This record gives sequence, structure tokens and C-alpha cells, in this order.
Amino acid sequence: MRHVGALIFPKFELLDLFGPLQMLGMLPEEFRLSLVSAHGRLVSSNQGPTAQADRAIGEDGDYDILLIPGGMGTRTEVGNARLIAWLGETTGHCEIVASVCTGAALLARAGMLDGRRATTNKFAFDWVVSQGPNVHWQRRARWVEDGKYFTSSGVSAGIDMSLALIARLHGRSVARDVASWSEYRWNEDPDDDPFAL
Amino acid sequence: MRHVGALIFPKFELLDLFGPLQMLGMLPEEFRLSLVSAHGRLVSSNQGPTAQADRAIGEDGDYDILLIPGGMGTRTEVGNARLIAWLGETTGHCEIVASVCTGAALLARAGMLDGRRATTNKFAFDWVVSQGPNVHWQRRARWVEDGKYFTSSGVSAGIDMSLALIARLHGRSVARDVASWSEYRWNEDPDDDPFAL
Repeated sequence: MRHVGALIFPKFELLDLFGPLQMLGMLPEEFRLSLVSAHGRLVSSNQGPTAQADRAIGEDGDYDILLIPGGMGTRTEVGNARLIAWLGETTGHCEIVASVCTGAALLARAGMLDGRRATTNKFAFDWVVSQGPNVHWQRRARWVEDGKYFTSSGVSAGIDMSLALIARLHGRSVARDVASWSEYRWNEDPDDDPFAL
Repeated sequence: MRHVGALIFPKFELLDLFGPLQMLGMLPEEFRLSLVSAHGRLVSSNQGPTAQADRAIGEDGDYDILLIPGGMGTRTEVGNARLIAWLGETTGHCEIVASVCTGAALLARAGMLDGRRATTNKFAFDWVVSQGPNVHWQRRARWVEDGKYFTSSGVSAGIDMSLALIARLHGRSVARDVASWSEYRWNEDPDDDPFAL
């Protein structure tokens, strides 16, 4: 059983977070999900709906996997020194770290992607690049795996990435089962990116 | 501006709810989103994460669109007479009513799908059928539109359905834009159902 810490912050993008959590949550014997926040208990998404954090970033979470969504709120959070410091420390202890969309900007700001291949969403690409000039940013990629770091392009791409994460830990057949249970057409090829500009 | 009331209940399915809300929420000038609950403010999903209701079912919501997710919790909610009565009354006033997955069981139980074509998810199909014997259930359908009722098959199919809903109200071009912004490959054909058993 792995413990997944999923970061929430004001104006996080709904599907960036809940797409991957749906997929991981379909294997409740394998993954335990916690929402983690630096901003108190109730955190509103970019689309309005509000989620409740299970933990604060100061509390010991002992996460095996960290999931970092994107959204407009990342524009503010790149300047949140306490959050960025926590990310740097926590990702060091994790088995897997995964970001969706502009969530990669937070990892980049923490320096965790330096020297690595990574991607992010198409509509904020140049801004994210500016947060991590020493990252090997990939403009054409549904998602990128580099060691323990998984980064996906925008919003829905996080679902494909989360299935790849399941495939790495539990095999491709289990990942395909999860996709099928949720009636999701998994794009299994990380290089098949129809949204590349 | 249309007001979307999205029902939450204990053990709702995360992506059933937040997939469609992501798509609608990408048009903030067109759709205002509220989470509605019969169970108080904080409601935990089937996967664990907890959402906060903006309103209770007794409060006047004046919804133009009602969105009903599925999930294990529907097994309990079909017996919630107060919720079913509210659904029957409220759907009567709505311009559009949409369900995802086993959310159709709640609409069926309220009698709102009687004589109509509808669908639901593959892995609970027979149970949902038992909740509405006078519904024309479609076993092969990504989603079904019958008048103001949109019903989708399991989990991820709700995203395709929500884009069809946007297409009906704002045109196919706008729906394609929303899909593109969220880097989502929209399955535009409601009859293309690779998960039909």
C-alpha cells in the first residue's frame, strides 16, 4: 500500500487533480489518497468547487508518491517560499513524483527537475520554462518519465500519465484494467501528442 | 450565464463529477458551478477525497442544468426518498439534466427517464436497469441525448457527454475549443462505444 499525497492550493485545476486520483483510487488496496495543503483545510479550485485537505504540508505525511496539479494558482505558488521548500524536501524522500500541467512549474522552481527531461501544458509553456531554465523541456510529449519524475502536459494528459505510473508499479495489464473500468481510452504512447503546437 | 447544480453524496465517483465540471468550468462566462448536497457541507467521494457543498438540496438553487454523478453511493441514495423527491421536482424545472455512470439510477428512480432512451455504466448495467424498468436502456452508447436528458456510460464517458452538452448550447466549435484547451481527445460520436460488452 503506497500513500499518495496530492497537493491542493487556491485555484488548482480540477481535472489535473481528480483525473489521476480517480485512476489511482480504483486500486484502493494499492493506493491510499490524501489531499495536502499549505493553505488550511478548505481550498477552492480554479473552477470554483472546493476540496478539503486531509493534511497540512507541515505535518508528517510519509508520502510514497506526490501528485502536483497545475492551474492558475501556480502563478502565485511559485512565490510561496514555504511551499517550494517543502516540495524540495518532500520530493527527495518520495518513490515517485508526478506533476500535471503547470504543476511542473512548482517542481522546477524547487530545482527538482534540473538536468531532467520534463513537460508541461501547451498554453503556459514559455512561462513554465522560465521557472526552470536548467530543465530539458519537451514541447512534444503527452507525458515524460525521467527517473522517479513523471510530468504531463495539460489537464487531461494527467490521466494518461497516471495510468503509466500504475503500469510502472503494477504492470501494463493492471493499468489497462483500470482504464477499462473507468471506460477511458488510454493513450499509451507518451510521444503521441496531438496538441503539440 | 447558466447555473449548474452538481449533486454530491457520500461515495460519489470523483471523475464522474469533476470531469464534466472541468469542461463546463472552462467557460466561466457561460457556466456558474455549485455543488449541492443532501448530506451536509462535507461529502467524501468513493475514492476518499472530500468536497464541500455550496448548497443544500432544500435551498432554492434555481438551477438551469443539473449534473448527477454515479459511484457506489448511488446504491444507498436510490433509497433516499427526500433526495429522489427533490430530483423529481428540480429536474422538472431544469433546461438540461445530465447524469454520468450510475447517476442514471437516481434519475430513473425519480421516474424522470420513463419512456426515454438512456444509458449508464457497463459494470452496473443490470442493477441500474432494475431501478427504471420503463426506461429504454441503451447498452451500446458512449452517451445518449433524449430531449433535455443527457445520460453517459461509465466515469470518463461523462467528459465526452459534457462536451456534447456544451456543443448543444454553444456550438460544436466552442466544444472543440474546450477539449483542445484541456488537451482532451473528444470522442464526438455518441455511438462509438469501445466498452460495450
